[in-house]
Amino acid sequence: MARRNALYAQSGGVTAVINASACGMLQAARQHSAEIGKVYAGRNGIIGVLTEDLIDTSTESEAAIAALKYTPGAAFGSCRYKLASIQEHHAQYERLIEVFQAHDIGFFFYNGGGDSQDTAYKVSQIGAALNYPIVCVGIPKTVDNDLPITDCSPGYGSVAKYLATCIREAAFDLSSMSRTSTKVFTLEVMGRHAGWMTAACALAAEQEGGGPPHVLLLPEIVFDEGRFLAKVEQAVGRYGHCVIAVSEGLKRSDGEFLSASGVKDAFGHAQLGGVAPVITNLIGAKLGHKCHWAVADYLQRSARHIASETDVQQAYAVGSAAVEFAIAGRNAVMPAIRRLSDSPYRWDIIEAPLSAIANQEKLLPREFISADGFDITEPARRYLAPLIVGEAYPPFKDGLPDYVTLQNVAVPKKLTREFAV
Amino acid sequence: MARRNALYAQSGGVTAVINASACGMLQAARQHSAEIGKVYAGRNGIIGVLTEDLIDTSTESEAAIAALKYTPGAAFGSCRYKLASIQEHHAQYERLIEVFQAHDIGFFFYNGGGDSQDTAYKVSQIGAALNYPIVCVGIPKTVDNDLPITDCSPGYGSVAKYLATCIREAAFDLSSMSRTSTKVFTLEVMGRHAGWMTAACALAAEQEGGGPPHVLLLPEIVFDEGRFLAKVEQAVGRYGHCVIAVSEGLKRSDGEFLSASGVKDAFGHAQLGGVAPVITNLIGAKLGHKCHWAVADYLQRSARHIASETDVQQAYAVGSAAVEFAIAGRNAVMPAIRRLSDSPYRWDIIEAPLSAIANQEKLLPREFISADGFDITEPARRYLAPLIVGEAYPPFKDGLPDYVTLQNVAVPKKLTREFAV
Repeated sequence: MARRNALYAQSGGVTAVINASACGMLQAARQHSAEIGKVYAGRNGIIGVLTEDLIDTSTESEAAIAALKYTPGAAFGSCRYKLASIQEHHAQYERLIEVFQAHDIGFFFYNGGGDSQDTAYKVSQIGAALNYPIVCVGIPKTVDNDLPITDCSPGYGSVAKYLATCIREAAFDLSSMSRTSTKVFTLEVMGRHAGWMTAACALAAEQEGGGPPHVLLLPEIVFDEGRFLAKVEQAVGRYGHCVIAVSEGLKRSDGEFLSASGVKDAFGHAQLGGVAPVITNLIGAKLGHKCHWAVADYLQRSARHIASETDVQQAYAVGSAAVEFAIAGRNAVMPAIRRLSDSPYRWDIIEAPLSAIANQEKLLPREFISADGFDITEPARRYLAPLIVGEAYPPFKDGLPDYVTLQNVAVPKKLTREFAV
Repeated sequence: MARRNALYAQSGGVTAVINASACGMLQAARQHSAEIGKVYAGRNGIIGVLTEDLIDTSTESEAAIAALKYTPGAAFGSCRYKLASIQEHHAQYERLIEVFQAHDIGFFFYNGGGDSQDTAYKVSQIGAALNYPIVCVGIPKTVDNDLPITDCSPGYGSVAKYLATCIREAAFDLSSMSRTSTKVFTLEVMGRHAGWMTAACALAAEQEGGGPPHVLLLPEIVFDEGRFLAKVEQAVGRYGHCVIAVSEGLKRSDGEFLSASGVKDAFGHAQLGGVAPVITNLIGAKLGHKCHWAVADYLQRSARHIASETDVQQAYAVGSAAVEFAIAGRNAVMPAIRRLSDSPYRWDIIEAPLSAIANQEKLLPREFISADGFDITEPARRYLAPLIVGEAYPPFKDGLPDYVTLQNVAVPKKLTREFAV
């Protein structure tokens, strides 16, 4: 096989460990210099590819690449941009091939969640459809943990560890003060449709019903005001206080988000935020308790300082495995994590077809949710517990995490035609 | 000097390290068993003292006491309850003496912020006023860093480290996505009147004007909508995005809080929260940028997992020093931190009179705030930088911080009279 260049791009909302996948991919590619020449990165994801705004990763030192393993965010920039089908938007795919040809790209790695794996799958089809030889491999990433086939999604274990830690700590604060002050604390958690992040909060307790947190409000369970308020009052009566984790995607029985702001993102999804104050106002008005609330927002998905070592290892492994798959000529696949046992926790990497990943959304299964809908079950705990194990602290300098910012040197453009995105 | 018992109580909003002060005090007291007999703790602060609801700390193991050094919250419970003056509420003080006498209390340690040091000062006066021999020593604690005399307040260094870390991490997230998605991220920070916590966010940048964060909204500076929006637009133009840290206590020119909810706490202070969405809506409406916001609330003051080692050492030291002062018969004092040099950072403990501490509020000095009001100056950086240095991770078990919950065994009541608070 002739040596060809590779192109890597990061896509969608970032995580604390997407750069660990980049690190795994880049280090593996550097070890396979017989098959892979330069590794370029799209600046701001697929947009950088379409606009021929490429980054030459070969100018980065070994140390800088190694530092990606502990740096949050997307080192090359990410975007929310979904390709239409080849039939709908032929010009986009012709442009991709034009850029690929100009830079002799034989391998394409796309690191993202469900929407992004859809893009990866479409790109993987241009070889057959448009007669351009390319090996396209998806690399999984999402805090939402909603990708199918893979046992978990890199990025999720770290946000799960962050959230369970925060809830445990905030509960120590709340219980200290609840005799004379705040009785209810609510933490708003990301997760538009899938309740995986909210479910992770329950790990702060050691068993079902053993809170805090005392109440989970999952997007899979329609919000019932009366049952919710009764549950809160029960916790306040029993423990003197109540800790709540609520998903930003909590819905009423009419299907409306409790926090709908009316703003939509580039994928057409409603932009959410602010359900915690809604819940808090409700409790204040109906139960009269003093409440506090927090909204973690970006803090949860960028909290590399409290990343899960398990998650970091898995993120690195899928990046590295993607290179192995690519060199073996495996087009239209994605490395997936397979669980071999819960305890001791053992896992390996398998190959999943992109056609089965794209646009699928794995919700929290009903058997992971307690009968009353406000907690998780023991099977859920068995699934979740190993994902947050291990600390993988970044280095600190002057009291703060010492993260890397790459040089991101541009690859000289070879095309004269501009492409508007 | 005859051996007498000691009474310790925690007061006001808790911190990540108030239990480190408890640890320092308890370990020092155990080493001074010739002078100090039992150490009791008020359950939920001064309320536990008034209601004779005391905890016997002697039943706790050495290991449990040692674990307080890395456990957030208030291990014995805290409260927001301010004593009136001896003249105004004589019965309260008679009750205190009744409880002190019943349990042979000769030493009283009160661990709290400005309002709590006022209580400590009042208790310190009952010896002279009501002829009960007691040595009362305050122990400083507040995330607000607004106590006078002491160079900094234990609790502040840890929240400062947490906030600067969060801002740095969220900025990596924001900058990754800002080309096609969110342009502005706002983090809401505690601090009703003093901007110390908001100022600490600026440590995420290495110099003035070197953001992120690009804009601080301090409670010491009246909010000016036009100047603020211009500053945001400048940052978006220059960097492609803007990171903002806003104090919950931000005020308009008419003196009103931007986020006033109308609810007041037990000290009569307005309960705040929710200025971040106000700021975000303003930017969305006036500048049209997509925005995200987070409210850290309790997460910031309970984040023991990312505590400052310097802060933990100081919290422990003031607890330990309080015992030394008490044994030396120093009534109506508080151990304060004195800075000897910025770099290398050196400090020691001095004695401050409670009369000079009570009810004082140390705001951010104007020379610590940049000319435009949106940043901090180099003198502020020199002051702040050493306070966040060093990591003091708690032990982890199963992926989560392994904090201690004490047994908190009640001391048998000796009084027949109840006292309503």
